[in-house]
Amino acid sequence: MEGMPVSMGGLRTLPWYVVGSQVLGVACVVITGVWMGHYHGGYAWDGSTQEFNVHPLCMVLGLVFLYGDAVLVYRVFRNETKRSVKILHALLHMMALIISIVGLVAVFDFHSAAKIPHMYSLHSWCGMLTFVLFFIQWLLGLGFFLFPWASARLRSWYLPLHIFFGLLLLAMSVGSCLLGITEKLLFNIMETYSRFTGEGVLANILGLLLVCFGVVVGYVVTREDFRRPPNPEEEALSVHFKTLSEGEIPSSP
Amino acid sequence: MEGMPVSMGGLRTLPWYVVGSQVLGVACVVITGVWMGHYHGGYAWDGSTQEFNVHPLCMVLGLVFLYGDAVLVYRVFRNETKRSVKILHALLHMMALIISIVGLVAVFDFHSAAKIPHMYSLHSWCGMLTFVLFFIQWLLGLGFFLFPWASARLRSWYLPLHIFFGLLLLAMSVGSCLLGITEKLLFNIMETYSRFTGEGVLANILGLLLVCFGVVVGYVVTREDFRRPPNPEEEALSVHFKTLSEGEIPSSP
Repeated sequence: MEGMPVSMGGLRTLPWYVVGSQVLGVACVVITGVWMGHYHGGYAWDGSTQEFNVHPLCMVLGLVFLYGDAVLVYRVFRNETKRSVKILHALLHMMALIISIVGLVAVFDFHSAAKIPHMYSLHSWCGMLTFVLFFIQWLLGLGFFLFPWASARLRSWYLPLHIFFGLLLLAMSVGSCLLGITEKLLFNIMETYSRFTGEGVLANILGLLLVCFGVVVGYVVTREDFRRPPNPEEEALSVHFKTLSEGEIPSSP
Repeated sequence: MEGMPVSMGGLRTLPWYVVGSQVLGVACVVITGVWMGHYHGGYAWDGSTQEFNVHPLCMVLGLVFLYGDAVLVYRVFRNETKRSVKILHALLHMMALIISIVGLVAVFDFHSAAKIPHMYSLHSWCGMLTFVLFFIQWLLGLGFFLFPWASARLRSWYLPLHIFFGLLLLAMSVGSCLLGITEKLLFNIMETYSRFTGEGVLANILGLLLVCFGVVVGYVVTREDFRRPPNPEEEALSVHFKTLSEGEIPSSP
């Protein structure tokens, strides 16, 4: 199948999906910002609930929106060199990593100041697992694909795992956000949540938009005719090579 | 790549992943059963909280375990005819559908008896969306693939969507279960959850095991060298044919 012309019919719809993903991603960040700003008193860095408010905003911005955009760059910049796109992919993930570290520090600070135990909830277990796996995946990605340390054989072994875990971690990020939304609502508006109050409905809509963002990114990345066209020169130079043991060409990230 | 020998090295590990998925799936069902049975007074069908307890058990058994197993059959029964495996796939999904309907009736009954509003939480929105999409996907699957109603062109258009939504719905099922676990814990043990009580830790572990089940099923289904070997006779007869407009062969479900 290599070298076959990519269906132009399918490709024409790609920009719409990309625009849709960006509208959804920005909407998620804005709604999280408004939720914490309007309903919970805004932002601070003093151990108060206003410091807690930094946590959801950073996690949605970093581990969902920027993470998703880092995944999308291979489809958006289809005709740039593989190396440029890889560097952009790594940089966006680095921004996602730094912003999510700020978000984690905010919630640990808030818990310490309020004498709330750390890491007891399912949200914290899933969220921390997602963050740790993301950090490991980022380090492995640098070592395997950006720097010339790994052999071609090792790279071709790791590439499908990198792609699988990349999409898995996007799903886990979205799932962890939804758990966080549910926790926040039940801690704060348990009595009124069932009466379809504004805050509850807004947060539920945020949850659905986060799912939609993840679905659109996942669809764009996995759709066969949205793949980058193979470039024989890059194949010879970089990660695209025959998997010697398998006799198959690994999928493009 | 069609017709190339499948790597036997990779295939040797398939049974281990399948056994692992079944151990995880059974563990999820048993732990859910023990959680509701031991900590929440067992099961009944009288509008009480014991009727509510039927809900988590049915959803984990139906929309996660049986759903996941229905997805796995294409990898487990690699050498059976495509038609037999399709029928098994549809039957397992039908069992998943019936059991999850029982689970939904249980929670609606309980809410009605306790005068709790329906469908206000993010868990209910995500769970209902998952169920409705699953039902639509099951109907479309029957119409497109099991009965000879759809044209070859329509089938080849729908197949990648069926696969994408199939895995998405598994992720959404697991995510909805995790939201339900968080809700149940915060409604029942909010005061003691942060002290790492037995029930809280058990339910958190259940959440992680559900994620692990979804990850193993997702990995087995998407791993390239675990795919069913192509069968030229079946290709000619059934859903495997050239996508006329794309010039590509759709992936096997």
